Amino acid sequence: MAEITSSARRFLREQRIARLATVDERGRPHIVPIVFVYDEGVVYTPIDSKPKSVPPEQLRRVRSILANPNVQVLLDYYDEDWQRLGYIQLRGSAELLRGGTEHERAISLLEEKYQQYQELPLEGRPVIKITVERTVTWGRFAT
Amino acid sequence: MAEITSSARRFLREQRIARLATVDERGRPHIVPIVFVYDEGVVYTPIDSKPKSVPPEQLRRVRSILANPNVQVLLDYYDEDWQRLGYIQLRGSAELLRGGTEHERAISLLEEKYQQYQELPLEGRPVIKITVERTVTWGRFAT
Repeated sequence: MAEITSSARRFLREQRIARLATVDERGRPHIVPIVFVYDEGVVYTPIDSKPKSVPPEQLRRVRSILANPNVQVLLDYYDEDWQRLGYIQLRGSAELLRGGTEHERAISLLEEKYQQYQELPLEGRPVIKITVERTVTWGRFAT
Repeated sequence: MAEITSSARRFLREQRIARLATVDERGRPHIVPIVFVYDEGVVYTPIDSKPKSVPPEQLRRVRSILANPNVQVLLDYYDEDWQRLGYIQLRGSAELLRGGTEHERAISLLEEKYQQYQELPLEGRPVIKITVERTVTWGRFAT
């Protein structure tokens, strides 16, 4: 990730929301907004307890990832002055963490970034880990 | 679209930016931020002249759509008060408009919504048309 600008790196660390695209078993794309942490070429996003109609294993993004680990995460910046637009696309491979040291670490990082988890405990919740394989930057984040 | 709330419908009309996910010929998802207009079950988004490194026909979202017309458009609302979160997913089928009455109408609607096109003319630019087949709403936009 040495190739991205410090402005892009800061945005990756500080941005509160990103979007995750997955492909389901029928080849159709799905996007959801995600909360996340970015940590040295890895994105972690929790399957938290914000209202969901099904258990984690049946959640579409989880089923999609199990069927096809190719995902993309988008972070973008909008401004009515279109000279200031920008985005960062992170292509990667996703897997589900259910426990262990890395899972604990991801939970800690998420709790540190989002105060909201003080009232919505992440303990025991699965975390999607995305290992970034390629980064594309555009506009204000272009290298 | 009679099933969505008036709040969701207003958000679809007024929101300045959305995200478009496509699937490429290798089954990988791509997401880009888009400007768009929503018009009675149809989303139009232009291939405008904001900086792009390749001609329209070679743009990934265009190649992807030609290979696989299944797309999804996401509009979301973020707030640090997570009780207020919401999103709208529009699943649909995409095609490229290059001319004709509908293309002209889409260009007019886009120019009306985005003053920026006064200095970035859309005339003659292709427009992606997405016919919405299914709408999912969550959180503040849930029915």
